[in-house]
Amino acid sequence: MVIVMRSGATEEEISAVKQIIESHELATLMMPGSVMAIGIPSSIPTDLRDPLQQQLEILPGVSKVTQVSRSFKLASREFHPESTRFSVGEADFGGEQLVIMAGPCSIESYDQLRETAAIVRAKGANVLRGGAFKPRTSPYAFQGLADEGLRIMKQVGREVGIATISEVMSPDMVGLLVENVDILQIGARSMQNFPLLIEAGKSRHPVMLKRGPSATIDEFLLAAEYLLANGNERVILCERGVHPLDRTYTRNTLDLSAVPVLKEVSHLPVIVDPSHGVGVAKWVPAMACAAIAAGADGLMVEVHPDPRSALSDAAQTLTPEAFGAMIERVGTFAHVSGRSLPCAAEAG
Amino acid sequence: MVIVMRSGATEEEISAVKQIIESHELATLMMPGSVMAIGIPSSIPTDLRDPLQQQLEILPGVSKVTQVSRSFKLASREFHPESTRFSVGEADFGGEQLVIMAGPCSIESYDQLRETAAIVRAKGANVLRGGAFKPRTSPYAFQGLADEGLRIMKQVGREVGIATISEVMSPDMVGLLVENVDILQIGARSMQNFPLLIEAGKSRHPVMLKRGPSATIDEFLLAAEYLLANGNERVILCERGVHPLDRTYTRNTLDLSAVPVLKEVSHLPVIVDPSHGVGVAKWVPAMACAAIAAGADGLMVEVHPDPRSALSDAAQTLTPEAFGAMIERVGTFAHVSGRSLPCAAEAG
Amino acid sequence: MVIVMRSGATEEEISAVKQIIESHELATLMMPGSVMAIGIPSSIPTDLRDPLQQQLEILPGVSKVTQVSRSFKLASREFHPESTRFSVGEADFGGEQLVIMAGPCSIESYDQLRETAAIVRAKGANVLRGGAFKPRTSPYAFQGLADEGLRIMKQVGREVGIATISEVMSPDMVGLLVENVDILQIGARSMQNFPLLIEAGKSRHPVMLKRGPSATIDEFLLAAEYLLANGNERVILCERGVHPLDRTYTRNTLDLSAVPVLKEVSHLPVIVDPSHGVGVAKWVPAMACAAIAAGADGLMVEVHPDPRSALSDAAQTLTPEAFGAMIERVGTFAHVSGRSLPCAAEAG
Amino acid sequence: MVIVMRSGATEEEISAVKQIIESHELATLMMPGSVMAIGIPSSIPTDLRDPLQQQLEILPGVSKVTQVSRSFKLASREFHPESTRFSVGEADFGGEQLVIMAGPCSIESYDQLRETAAIVRAKGANVLRGGAFKPRTSPYAFQGLADEGLRIMKQVGREVGIATISEVMSPDMVGLLVENVDILQIGARSMQNFPLLIEAGKSRHPVMLKRGPSATIDEFLLAAEYLLANGNERVILCERGVHPLDRTYTRNTLDLSAVPVLKEVSHLPVIVDPSHGVGVAKWVPAMACAAIAAGADGLMVEVHPDPRSALSDAAQTLTPEAFGAMIERVGTFAHVSGRSLPCAAEAG
Repeated sequence: MVIVMRSGATEEEISAVKQIIESHELATLMMPGSVMAIGIPSSIPTDLRDPLQQQLEILPGVSKVTQVSRSFKLASREFHPESTRFSVGEADFGGEQLVIMAGPCSIESYDQLRETAAIVRAKGANVLRGGAFKPRTSPYAFQGLADEGLRIMKQVGREVGIATISEVMSPDMVGLLVENVDILQIGARSMQNFPLLIEAGKSRHPVMLKRGPSATIDEFLLAAEYLLANGNERVILCERGVHPLDRTYTRNTLDLSAVPVLKEVSHLPVIVDPSHGVGVAKWVPAMACAAIAAGADGLMVEVHPDPRSALSDAAQTLTPEAFGAMIERVGTFAHVSGRSLPCAAEAG
Repeated sequence: MVIVMRSGATEEEISAVKQIIESHELATLMMPGSVMAIGIPSSIPTDLRDPLQQQLEILPGVSKVTQVSRSFKLASREFHPESTRFSVGEADFGGEQLVIMAGPCSIESYDQLRETAAIVRAKGANVLRGGAFKPRTSPYAFQGLADEGLRIMKQVGREVGIATISEVMSPDMVGLLVENVDILQIGARSMQNFPLLIEAGKSRHPVMLKRGPSATIDEFLLAAEYLLANGNERVILCERGVHPLDRTYTRNTLDLSAVPVLKEVSHLPVIVDPSHGVGVAKWVPAMACAAIAAGADGLMVEVHPDPRSALSDAAQTLTPEAFGAMIERVGTFAHVSGRSLPCAAEAG
Repeated sequence: MVIVMRSGATEEEISAVKQIIESHELATLMMPGSVMAIGIPSSIPTDLRDPLQQQLEILPGVSKVTQVSRSFKLASREFHPESTRFSVGEADFGGEQLVIMAGPCSIESYDQLRETAAIVRAKGANVLRGGAFKPRTSPYAFQGLADEGLRIMKQVGREVGIATISEVMSPDMVGLLVENVDILQIGARSMQNFPLLIEAGKSRHPVMLKRGPSATIDEFLLAAEYLLANGNERVILCERGVHPLDRTYTRNTLDLSAVPVLKEVSHLPVIVDPSHGVGVAKWVPAMACAAIAAGADGLMVEVHPDPRSALSDAAQTLTPEAFGAMIERVGTFAHVSGRSLPCAAEAG
Repeated sequence: MVIVMRSGATEEEISAVKQIIESHELATLMMPGSVMAIGIPSSIPTDLRDPLQQQLEILPGVSKVTQVSRSFKLASREFHPESTRFSVGEADFGGEQLVIMAGPCSIESYDQLRETAAIVRAKGANVLRGGAFKPRTSPYAFQGLADEGLRIMKQVGREVGIATISEVMSPDMVGLLVENVDILQIGARSMQNFPLLIEAGKSRHPVMLKRGPSATIDEFLLAAEYLLANGNERVILCERGVHPLDRTYTRNTLDLSAVPVLKEVSHLPVIVDPSHGVGVAKWVPAMACAAIAAGADGLMVEVHPDPRSALSDAAQTLTPEAFGAMIERVGTFAHVSGRSLPCAAEAG
């Protein structure tokens, strides 16, 4: 249940609402904004719902009382009508300018990351991606450079002047990532790693949350709710494909209808990762353009100076040339959508 | 197995290849084009494959012999490198101009269809859609006007000067549909209705085949292969969404990555139906734009003068105004993709 | 909406209910049973529902009025509490004795079918299966012996004294099948072939309906509703596996929880087809036993005297020996479930 | 690649194999058993594979050299032909006697757990389940008693004389769980939480790994491979249902064909959780019986003295009476499968 106060409601009026709720041994969640709203996050006994609603509706200063159907609250646009917008370095999430995240799947060396960062920044990226701790299906696959990788990323980010993002896989690593990168990535396989969500929420560091391969929209937004409910307001959603009917051609099925749905239901910025979404480099540009046309706020793509030598995800990784060509095409779609590319690309 | 002849191969050389294949009691399939190719559609005994390939490769006039991995042949671009292109009325399938199919889910009356046809044509559609025989999940739902509906469609198509498409659900109805509409539609639930595919193939009337809700790309192209193998070359593929993770927000999951995949693997034109794909009118325009950005050759959308009164699919049906606005947005994406809208819309 | 009359309600009382419903221009569906129930199959305008319910509830002879939530009515146990039970030859559907359907995927010749029939009958089958018209994903695969196959099946069924089942793929073939086999099979790909469902319903010949690969339980029961609403009461449901997560090990995912769900929600008998469900012969017996333990009324399995030479589905077909061993195992599970094998098997 | 030695191969012969492999800068993995096998866990350069195989095959003491197709090795039965078997308290995993894990979804209090433990043990359970840290989709749902819950579980396990299992959600909690419970549970949502798998592997404490909701069989076994490759041989697999077509009737789709597949492909014991698999208490017993018929080594079910008051998963939780009745039914299926119930149940 959410109680929306009138604009200009007094402290006393707000406090009266709070008291009545707490008299029923229910917790309250204060949600300040253009008007104050008061949420009741825990579930309310069935037979209390209607009487409580009636009791609250007649209080002075109360504008409306809604029994929320969706189980997420802080992630819902219903009570946070303005789109969330925030900056990380030069990247403006939720703004008119697109966010372009690019870089290698794995950080392999200082030289590899430095070279890639310079290339992608020049071609228009405003966030550098790169994995230091890699979630690999097989224990025998390359697992990443770990701490060393993060150190490299921090240095390269500073030198090249680009914001950075890297994946965190366990709660005890949140601190280490916060120190070294500008945005924490929570991967698809970790979408319901609740201890990790809580820790990343408490960190108040920007977080990009990827949708799990069989997560419904509600499950995805409830995972985001964990971040928000733990105090983190800088949350980015990322669609990266759901489990496919088969894998003959694509690795996943990129669910682009999630973009307009998420943009309507939630106020959080939405990024699309076509690299994991299709898993085949030659089809990435078409899906990147489609994502922008569908209304995405940005893209995350894998780029490597020499994809054939990449230690992971080689098949879906773009060459610098392919990335540049893609950004050009994306730019034309951005313009007709009333969006723009990051400045470097526009200047380029 | 497919044997590709050199350009300029003589009749004798081609005939020698044919003879050797038939000496093994295997059928041949002649596939003329810029160069002649000869297919072996039936499966070849395992122990014959390699010797046969070697035997054929050394013949004069033979350019290459390939053991086809995919089980579809006629639908494959591998041996039909040029994109299929054909016209139906003013609609140019596979050409530079997009095909826009629009109209009501069901034909309800002459007045309803006449009004809708005039509106959608004026706003840019070049094909009128409308169901006379409706595949309905429940036996208690409106089943369509049947023959009467087809008669109305034929009349309206002529009066308004627009090509028409309607669904055929059983082989014995193919003749009736061929008489009354310009394009046969085979619905998602009928994608593997093989007697229907055979009859529609033999009719040689243009056919649009919709992808089944759990059909893989290969199963989809093998269904198209039924049409092609029965002599029909005017085949259109339509992506309309696959079975979703859940139906809280959308009716299906529109698989837009199928567009670049199908355009590469096959030579057939690809249409996207965002109305069934998402099932919610307000999200149809975003997905229509995304489909064009992904490379689709056209769209099929549901439009009704008064969606609330529509006898079927009301939730996903656009008003004339929403359709007009959508076509305008689609046009801007078409232009930056090097495509154009149908003339009526360009003029409008 | 369904109006359940008291036991002993008079003709006049029933007729009064009917009149009121029809005065609102709604159709009625008489559902006789231990007590008479009257259904309103079409949808009722929202604002009429509650007043109509109140109007009917106070009529003499009316026991209760329910606004049915599920959209299927005739297939629902709610208004047909007793399980449907009927015999075809020696097979007793819905009874205590299990139904065992066995035979080759395709009818290949008189000798092949005669031999298989004799074997499977001796080992306990009471229905002979075999395809004459085969739904094949590829147009180049063996398509069945057609009419000739049906003629063979009719003859073999008589000679061996076993009921027969074969698939019908289009409405115009229903008559031919009815003449030649005892049970019509509607395959998974045809589950929503509505013209076929209507024709098979009107035939009043026993029909086994297979669940489509991405059909929900409600979609499955609505397809059965088509058969029932067209006058056919001898309908059998068959679970045969849904689209799998991947096909590395199994062809489909056999959804055995559908068995207790269907047995509770519907009154129709439920058969399980583990051959298509898993697609690998060695795993068929385990799934056959599990199906019986889950409460299935019978099994359909593919058996061939020499599976390696079978013209279709070789990988999932049991040898006669494997079939005999499976029936023995199934028998022990049947006994502890309070069921029995067909007589031949019990005697064997 | 795996090199299987002859039985009786000498230390020198084994050492010669090892040397050759390492001379190519490849790591070796010694897999002792009835015969010694030597694995090469990392991937071998393509052009080295065939020469290396030939080089090794001719060495004295080598029985065969296989290029493993599946990417899991330690979890594969191919090189570990005997079934893994081990005991935890009275529970014998992989033996003839079934393992029955039962208890509440969440530990709510000492009294609740003590009462449940006594009941389920008396009725035949040999492992007590109960969650202290709960993975909840919503941040507003009951999250478990945490450390206090584990303390209760340890005490109750000792008092009642029953082995215990509880879920661990992050790597830093592995130590705490190891101290307090006999078996670590890794939940479906954590199946690809690789840091957790590594830590649980290193602990060498028995672990039950649940299959993720969209995990293929190979992804599941590769997750188990993480545990095994980190030194833990006491690994139990648990099938608990995959993402369903829809959730109208069941919460998940229990994939029972995974049981015979996993039992053949791997040597690890396989448990089935029908409570999460279907999510509805009334259908749990049918699926429990089906799981045993399919060849499962045991069951995990949720039982609560008063399911309506349970703080989580109330809908799928059995009453003590329903649990007792289920165990009786399961027992009859166990007997005809050549298995037995735990002693308490047999005595009861």
